[in-house]
Amino acid sequence: MILLKHPVSIIAAAAVGGKKEGKGPYGSGFDVIYDDDMLGQESWELAEAEFQHNAVQKLYEKTSLRPDLMFAGDLQSQCTASTATALRLQIPHCGIYGACSTIAQSIALASSFVSSGLSTNSLCVTSSHYCSAERQFRTPLDYGSKRSSTAQWTVTAAAALMISGAKKPPFIHRAMFGRVIDLEITDPANMGAAMAPAAVDTLIRYLAATVTNPCDYRAIYTGDLGLHGSDMFRKLAKKEGLIVDNHIDCGCEIYDIEEQEVECGGSGCACSASLLGIKIIPELLSSGGKVLLMSTGALLSPITVGQQKSIPGIAHLIELSAE
Amino acid sequence: MILLKHPVSIIAAAAVGGKKEGKGPYGSGFDVIYDDDMLGQESWELAEAEFQHNAVQKLYEKTSLRPDLMFAGDLQSQCTASTATALRLQIPHCGIYGACSTIAQSIALASSFVSSGLSTNSLCVTSSHYCSAERQFRTPLDYGSKRSSTAQWTVTAAAALMISGAKKPPFIHRAMFGRVIDLEITDPANMGAAMAPAAVDTLIRYLAATVTNPCDYRAIYTGDLGLHGSDMFRKLAKKEGLIVDNHIDCGCEIYDIEEQEVECGGSGCACSASLLGIKIIPELLSSGGKVLLMSTGALLSPITVGQQKSIPGIAHLIELSAE
Repeated sequence: MILLKHPVSIIAAAAVGGKKEGKGPYGSGFDVIYDDDMLGQESWELAEAEFQHNAVQKLYEKTSLRPDLMFAGDLQSQCTASTATALRLQIPHCGIYGACSTIAQSIALASSFVSSGLSTNSLCVTSSHYCSAERQFRTPLDYGSKRSSTAQWTVTAAAALMISGAKKPPFIHRAMFGRVIDLEITDPANMGAAMAPAAVDTLIRYLAATVTNPCDYRAIYTGDLGLHGSDMFRKLAKKEGLIVDNHIDCGCEIYDIEEQEVECGGSGCACSASLLGIKIIPELLSSGGKVLLMSTGALLSPITVGQQKSIPGIAHLIELSAE
Repeated sequence: MILLKHPVSIIAAAAVGGKKEGKGPYGSGFDVIYDDDMLGQESWELAEAEFQHNAVQKLYEKTSLRPDLMFAGDLQSQCTASTATALRLQIPHCGIYGACSTIAQSIALASSFVSSGLSTNSLCVTSSHYCSAERQFRTPLDYGSKRSSTAQWTVTAAAALMISGAKKPPFIHRAMFGRVIDLEITDPANMGAAMAPAAVDTLIRYLAATVTNPCDYRAIYTGDLGLHGSDMFRKLAKKEGLIVDNHIDCGCEIYDIEEQEVECGGSGCACSASLLGIKIIPELLSSGGKVLLMSTGALLSPITVGQQKSIPGIAHLIELSAE
């Protein structure tokens, strides 16, 4: 577990989203909703990079602080959306890969650097795009393949957060990096099942290290397990003797699952990253107390999918506190 | 720049390599050389993961310390070789992506965590494999395409290092994360040119931040610029008023360039990562003083290559000291 000597603050957060995200229950919380998911770019991949850059620009409107270091990653092979953002920002860049767990991983890293005085302000950025993710991991959309009932809809959005040592809530006191867990799921359209065991593993390790119980937190968020994965998460936790009544999955929240035809819910790096600023932080600040966010990542690649290898999962955790 | 409050130590290093690496000038320095680059696996990608795992096992033979955190990354899309290693080791895993700059990036991160007391011992791991890299970024070997004169040969090897707070040289006092620099190179067979400007950028920023000159260091190593990229590095540095007489490129060292038919030299995450333990550290310990290692990464992806986008570069720096 990472126990920071000096708590740090998420001083500002911004998120920009696509049309479908704008129609979801938290649509009005995005700083900008774009009608055109291409943002005038020539490819989905470049459009995703543009979302990221725009999220940072919105963040810069909310805080006058500027980062001396950035931690960014995304789902594109070799994290190219983040590379494009780092190229435009021209600040020292620490590229990370944690799939959809990226935002918690980047905040854990940034918090460690800021708390230790190795960075004054650190920027955390991530993104996902439905079209670039489908082309990369599953089937290019042009093929018109049928979506499976366990599928989740990759959120088209980007989020940017600034970590500083300011004495302003929400605070990060503690965080934990996840272990890679593999339950031998091989279906890239069933990511919730691939990630749920990792979330349980991280939660158990965290509660043991902090000598706390699930009920000590106002809510325990997971990143993007979706309906199926969330059910599995609660069942696996129960097997380990943990009743997690206060579990909320960002993937189950970001869309109106029935109305918006997203099968098991939302997924993607931008799922928990967007809801962190739009829902989790504002609710924490009004309710007080502490919440946990475990962003969950499915560590597949186009090559491992093609080779029909199993999909390992990982879950990184941050604890957010109003005090 | 990252200025550590407490210096940390690279307490042990291990590297395992393939047949061609074994025939290079530093072949005898590897802990193991394998005759079969497949290591009995069914794919090149799995073989690369096996190299990584074996490097960690060799490291564990050299030190009784065990890590509480690992920083790992590689060239495979979504860093799957590192995911496989993290799955087998079952320790908290912070996945990073910096292409061939991975080892300097991971050491900068691990040093920061250990120095700040957030980790007792951290493991840094990386790998590259000629066959998996060619298939992914250029042309599958089976196609028998002709290699260009600016091409470099991806090193088939893996390296693992342990960072601890022990009072034993070599020490890390300082490090620096690179910025992403793009000189509009679009040829994936000319990576040296894509990375050289990033190395110059990092070096200039580092010398300014530390108020030092190139001659204050016994040697200034770059990761894998190769012959063409190294020449470009020295020319670009000279343009900026820097004479770097003590520059050594790991990509020019790891093979006998003429004898081994590797065109411009070696490349890949494992190039500077292997030579760090085999050559750089032993020479530093016998000569004393300080050296800089800037591992250089070309941030291309199979998709950006297909879309004929330019290849940005990055260079992360660590300063190694005998005192």
